[in-house]
Amino acid sequence: MLPGGVTYAERFNGISGSAIRAIFKVLNRPGIISFAGGNPSGDALPDEVCAELARDALLADGKRILQYGATEGYPPFTESLTAYLQKGYRFPVEKQNVLPISGSTQGVDLLCKAFTNPGDTALVESPTFLGNMQTLRVYQQKLVAVESDEQGVKLDQLENAVKQHHPKLFYVIPTFQNPTGRTLAAERREPIAKMAEEYGFLVVEDDPYRDLRYSGSPLPPIKEYDRSEHVVYMGSFSKIISPGLRVGFMIANEDIIAKCAIAKQGTDLHTANLSQAIVDLYLRRNLLAPHIAQVLPSYRDKLNAMLSELETFPKGTRYTRPEGGLFIFVTMPEGFDAGAVFQEAVDRGVAYVAGTSFYPEGGHLNTLRLNFSNSTLAQIHEGMGLLRELFASKLQ
Amino acid sequence: MLPGGVTYAERFNGISGSAIRAIFKVLNRPGIISFAGGNPSGDALPDEVCAELARDALLADGKRILQYGATEGYPPFTESLTAYLQKGYRFPVEKQNVLPISGSTQGVDLLCKAFTNPGDTALVESPTFLGNMQTLRVYQQKLVAVESDEQGVKLDQLENAVKQHHPKLFYVIPTFQNPTGRTLAAERREPIAKMAEEYGFLVVEDDPYRDLRYSGSPLPPIKEYDRSEHVVYMGSFSKIISPGLRVGFMIANEDIIAKCAIAKQGTDLHTANLSQAIVDLYLRRNLLAPHIAQVLPSYRDKLNAMLSELETFPKGTRYTRPEGGLFIFVTMPEGFDAGAVFQEAVDRGVAYVAGTSFYPEGGHLNTLRLNFSNSTLAQIHEGMGLLRELFASKLQ
Repeated sequence: MLPGGVTYAERFNGISGSAIRAIFKVLNRPGIISFAGGNPSGDALPDEVCAELARDALLADGKRILQYGATEGYPPFTESLTAYLQKGYRFPVEKQNVLPISGSTQGVDLLCKAFTNPGDTALVESPTFLGNMQTLRVYQQKLVAVESDEQGVKLDQLENAVKQHHPKLFYVIPTFQNPTGRTLAAERREPIAKMAEEYGFLVVEDDPYRDLRYSGSPLPPIKEYDRSEHVVYMGSFSKIISPGLRVGFMIANEDIIAKCAIAKQGTDLHTANLSQAIVDLYLRRNLLAPHIAQVLPSYRDKLNAMLSELETFPKGTRYTRPEGGLFIFVTMPEGFDAGAVFQEAVDRGVAYVAGTSFYPEGGHLNTLRLNFSNSTLAQIHEGMGLLRELFASKLQ
Repeated sequence: MLPGGVTYAERFNGISGSAIRAIFKVLNRPGIISFAGGNPSGDALPDEVCAELARDALLADGKRILQYGATEGYPPFTESLTAYLQKGYRFPVEKQNVLPISGSTQGVDLLCKAFTNPGDTALVESPTFLGNMQTLRVYQQKLVAVESDEQGVKLDQLENAVKQHHPKLFYVIPTFQNPTGRTLAAERREPIAKMAEEYGFLVVEDDPYRDLRYSGSPLPPIKEYDRSEHVVYMGSFSKIISPGLRVGFMIANEDIIAKCAIAKQGTDLHTANLSQAIVDLYLRRNLLAPHIAQVLPSYRDKLNAMLSELETFPKGTRYTRPEGGLFIFVTMPEGFDAGAVFQEAVDRGVAYVAGTSFYPEGGHLNTLRLNFSNSTLAQIHEGMGLLRELFASKLQ
């Protein structure tokens, strides 16, 4: 119970955070096979390397790392990060276009803080990442869902929504989307950048899965077509080095970055220097590309194992066939309720996330999100077997 | 220039962040004697120890540290932190009353997010910490200054302000306050807790300097008198281990903590695990008390050196005589303008912060804040000599 006279903020009406918290609780149950989180595989977390990097960084530059840092970033890291981005992207990136952040959630938080007012409209894919939907909701954004198909968001629907709602921003995960694993088609990317220029809204391009590609060819980010600087691009080292370090980055127009830096001053002052220093050495010592190359084959095997298990699921089961990322999205026949079956699945020893949480408008009870990266092949076969049997029993 | 059609949020009207940024720029100029920041001394930053702790933590529990963590904290740290707090404070602390945060700025951000609406009133000491004033302003809090004297905030003024403005919260730094170095008198502490209970507002007690006491006896936090759970207590390891790690904590009513945790989910998901793990080992290996004991004598010497330099400042110069912390607050004779003289001071090689930035209502142009912890004794003598000469020349 709250102390007498103390009340919640209006922006917290309807904010429960429960979907995320339920996931964490399930993950903590020993022995459970969890397809629920969005976690990298433990095997892919370079603990011994990071132990040496942390020690090296602190012995070489410890006084600066342990001291207060600049909001704009730990200087060696902003340098190596800018060089890394200049090499990795074909759009221009200078130091003043980059801000280290703790991840895309902080990016959305800072953008909302600096650029949105309560009651503004934010367009989102349907379905989309539930965590950032919560952040948008806390800033009292009116969420308008834009329908997607196998090629990502539908452009005609997007343009209709833009005309009707005059959004402040469009939040989009173009590559190996969370929760669907889908990738926005190449030919839909440039029109989105042009639409943002024409109608004057921000495209918030959240691209953390980009480097986890198991087949097919990389596509240019929307930001590459961004001649008017309406696209804010966010990347992260969470999926390719470590999420626990909390290091990502935002690339945007200089004045957007400057305002987000002021917002960050009043939020956490700066990202932990040691986390930045570890990623800095990871980049400087050219460890990232080999690490990703080492991780990809086992993620590919896990994706394929889960896809082949899905082939044997009950008639009428549909699912996405991602070329990368961490997730497969499953649509069971109408009448199936993934939320209602969830507890029974957990009781049998396997967890997932009901898809309804990812839809801004709710509904879609027959959908669920499966993560394959954080289980072994054996767990995937066993867990999918349990789900197949359970789901089949519900469809009789 | 912002991209076409993109506008700032209303909450950013008048937010420039410039005072803080000016400080950082000055600090980065080589050779300057800076009394401007709030930085611990480089000597006090345990870089070699942290290098070993970081390595040990990652080798022992690296897979968990590098993985996504719980918003509620890295489990070994929440355990050792709770034990540390139970030992250090005489008010009850259980796990559900504690939230690891990146510092008091994040604490204020989360509290504002979860508990305040635009247009609410926040009472603050006058003067007070400029960074958290900015955070309160971004949440469109109406800041009402409550006058202070040598004993801290004046209770009659506080009660008048409470009756008149019905505040949501009162932000107070009770011990070795920033910017004044003053400590709230023992007999003023219990009445504040009782006032919060009677009138139903939150006391946000920001207490990061508590352990940096060079003379006198410790006083009980306001939280110790808090029978109705209206006091939110915030502490930090920034001043006693390292600010660059970004690890602090909030202690509060269970439902306040739960709501702040939901707010934190949508802000940075969780504090960097490695930072938490380093502080965890610092506590478990009983390194903190000896480290503080080792740091105190040199901070005491620096405070005394600066105070003795101030004795020789021009007639009419007044200044606080703190028993601890990092700051001395100086009031020059009327007519002196610390902001106007600032650039000339920097040109002569010494920096401070003009006091006006710390007053919610502005004014007080003849005041300035001096930090002594981040300079050597020689720098203190030299820098204070430069200031004395410069200030005297302005008063003729």
